[in-house]
Amino acid sequence: MPSSSLPAGFRFAGSSCGIKPSGSPDLSLVVADRPLTAVGVYTKNQIVAAPVVLCRQRTPSQTIRAVVTNSGNANACTGEQGVQDAASMCRLVGEQLGINESDVLVMSTGVIGQTLPMDRVASGIEQAARELGDGQEHFQVAADAILTTDKQRKIAAESVPLGDAVIRVASMAKGAGMIAPNMATMLGMIFTDAAIEPELAQSILRSVADSSFNRVSVDGHTSTNDTLLLLASGTSDVTIDDSNRSAFEAAVRNQCIQLAVEMVADGEGASRVMKIAIGGAQSDEDAETIARIVGESPLVKTAITGCDPNWGRIVSAAGNAAAPIDPSKTTLALCGTMIYRDGAPTDYDEPQLSRTMAENQVVEVELTVGAGNGTSTHWASDLTTNYVRFNSEYTT
Amino acid sequence: MPSSSLPAGFRFAGSSCGIKPSGSPDLSLVVADRPLTAVGVYTKNQIVAAPVVLCRQRTPSQTIRAVVTNSGNANACTGEQGVQDAASMCRLVGEQLGINESDVLVMSTGVIGQTLPMDRVASGIEQAARELGDGQEHFQVAADAILTTDKQRKIAAESVPLGDAVIRVASMAKGAGMIAPNMATMLGMIFTDAAIEPELAQSILRSVADSSFNRVSVDGHTSTNDTLLLLASGTSDVTIDDSNRSAFEAAVRNQCIQLAVEMVADGEGASRVMKIAIGGAQSDEDAETIARIVGESPLVKTAITGCDPNWGRIVSAAGNAAAPIDPSKTTLALCGTMIYRDGAPTDYDEPQLSRTMAENQVVEVELTVGAGNGTSTHWASDLTTNYVRFNSEYTT
Repeated sequence: MPSSSLPAGFRFAGSSCGIKPSGSPDLSLVVADRPLTAVGVYTKNQIVAAPVVLCRQRTPSQTIRAVVTNSGNANACTGEQGVQDAASMCRLVGEQLGINESDVLVMSTGVIGQTLPMDRVASGIEQAARELGDGQEHFQVAADAILTTDKQRKIAAESVPLGDAVIRVASMAKGAGMIAPNMATMLGMIFTDAAIEPELAQSILRSVADSSFNRVSVDGHTSTNDTLLLLASGTSDVTIDDSNRSAFEAAVRNQCIQLAVEMVADGEGASRVMKIAIGGAQSDEDAETIARIVGESPLVKTAITGCDPNWGRIVSAAGNAAAPIDPSKTTLALCGTMIYRDGAPTDYDEPQLSRTMAENQVVEVELTVGAGNGTSTHWASDLTTNYVRFNSEYTT
Repeated sequence: MPSSSLPAGFRFAGSSCGIKPSGSPDLSLVVADRPLTAVGVYTKNQIVAAPVVLCRQRTPSQTIRAVVTNSGNANACTGEQGVQDAASMCRLVGEQLGINESDVLVMSTGVIGQTLPMDRVASGIEQAARELGDGQEHFQVAADAILTTDKQRKIAAESVPLGDAVIRVASMAKGAGMIAPNMATMLGMIFTDAAIEPELAQSILRSVADSSFNRVSVDGHTSTNDTLLLLASGTSDVTIDDSNRSAFEAAVRNQCIQLAVEMVADGEGASRVMKIAIGGAQSDEDAETIARIVGESPLVKTAITGCDPNWGRIVSAAGNAAAPIDPSKTTLALCGTMIYRDGAPTDYDEPQLSRTMAENQVVEVELTVGAGNGTSTHWASDLTTNYVRFNSEYTT
């Protein structure tokens, strides 16, 4: 990723302030040279973390100047103290940068139910404010500081031609547990130097989220903290409008799909990814309903883990969906091999297909459920002993 | 279980005919001396196994004389051949016993998508027909022959006083994977020597299923074969009507709850059971929706496995339900210890509670989600590395 593909108008920093016992970076700061257009989409969980409450109040906005994120502690289910702490994080950033505290957004991710160690957070903000920069290394450490159980940094950046002009789009995200459709325990930020009105930005972000981060599942457990922000600096002097919206939206969507799939591949304990393509449903919404129930079934997930072309589990999972399927027109291919056609198993080389599954990090599941026009593509991790081990030893 | 508590009018047998490679009993036969009242409730999966299709056509009935069950092969997703095989099983039983084949019900459980080895099934039916008897040992081997991955036989029997008379109720069931609310990969039969009209029997069975087998979850994956039958011989000359319905229904319900909880405890890989009691919901239906999502969350399940009083996972799972909760009135106790009250964590002895969880095979999860009157109790297994190991090595 060349540094030159980072959008102009942003500076980044990450610091290690000791929220995480490991000493890994845990405080991320993004600052804009001038007011940003900022819009967000947020968790649909009814239990909402304090920073999400605050971000919802402050977006959409045309005056945002900074986003501060801590990892290692979700500041969720922390009551009135949590609300005060989220506000304090914004105030501390405002003091360090000389900007209005109400023009700062805040995100948190990590363990639920513990109040933030605000002294450490404060020193992390001070340190990050001193180390801000617009280089690739600054962007990377800011991206590292939002990670929790992720094993891989998740970033993307590119230059996007829009007619005669060129804008830049970059993004960062984190997983890696409590990942479910309708946002995950995911945090994500998309940065651009295009100019855009909040209403159009919100429409684009909603659409992009629905076809990227809302199409992935690790464990079907939507978190309390999910936040995806689109931040536009306008420094390129290119304005997004109806004439160039589609090219801009496609670039943002591609980055978000890339990060969402990386999130699944890096899901807790995941050994491989299912790419579940549903066809023939009565609507796209029905197709997504069916894709989700397939991707979330522990029996399907463990079959994928075991490289077992167990179509019975996949087909019967689809049959459980709250969306109609036509069993007599149900057809399934795994990794391109047709194993179930029009309601009956085919004659295929099972050991060979099992070997093919083992060789692929992404297992393609193509399931046709009838004669309708509804389609959806969904990505889900498998379920391994490592997932169980990891999650049965998390806080204790 | 004294043999004398078995209802009169039934004979039982089980045989080993080689459907299961292990050589364990895999063909179960129940025969009635005279026509039975027979009603059933069946899977809600849209993919339905051949024997379920046949049973749905033949119940309710007042002429059923036998039920034949094989384990080791579900006869599901087997197309026209499967339909013929299910009918052949009934025909073979009819021939052996000299009864009408349309008065025979059939159940199957095991691997999906393989056609039945009908020569073995036929020899199993012949053998079972020779070995029928009304003793406790006959009942037990018939119950053993419906098991698949179950580690424990699941039976119950008792005498039930109804006014001046006494009737008998006995039952058998099997789990132990693809277990979810709305019936599980479960098969179950309830036997009684009471007389009862089909319409009343159906009403009682529906109600009992909804508060027992439909309140348990191992892996949230409703199978293609779920069948629960109520079979009444009438040999006691006691008739169930409005005057004694409630006592009879209570006895049937108690047995079914017992077997359903045993099914969860014996769930694939399960190390302990969650008993999830939801209160304060806006309706009983909402309470059950919330209980299910808590019981099916992999993050909650693995926390229970790890004896980790991780209330954040439980409360946030509830927040994902498609039923409203009031976060400010959400309160949670684990094993009787209040750990979250009105939206905020309490100060409790976490190591002590973790030890208490470790000492209990049933972990009581009491979650109040608001000020409503809706309640539900739900049983779910935890999620262990053994579950994953077992299910990633099932057919291959």
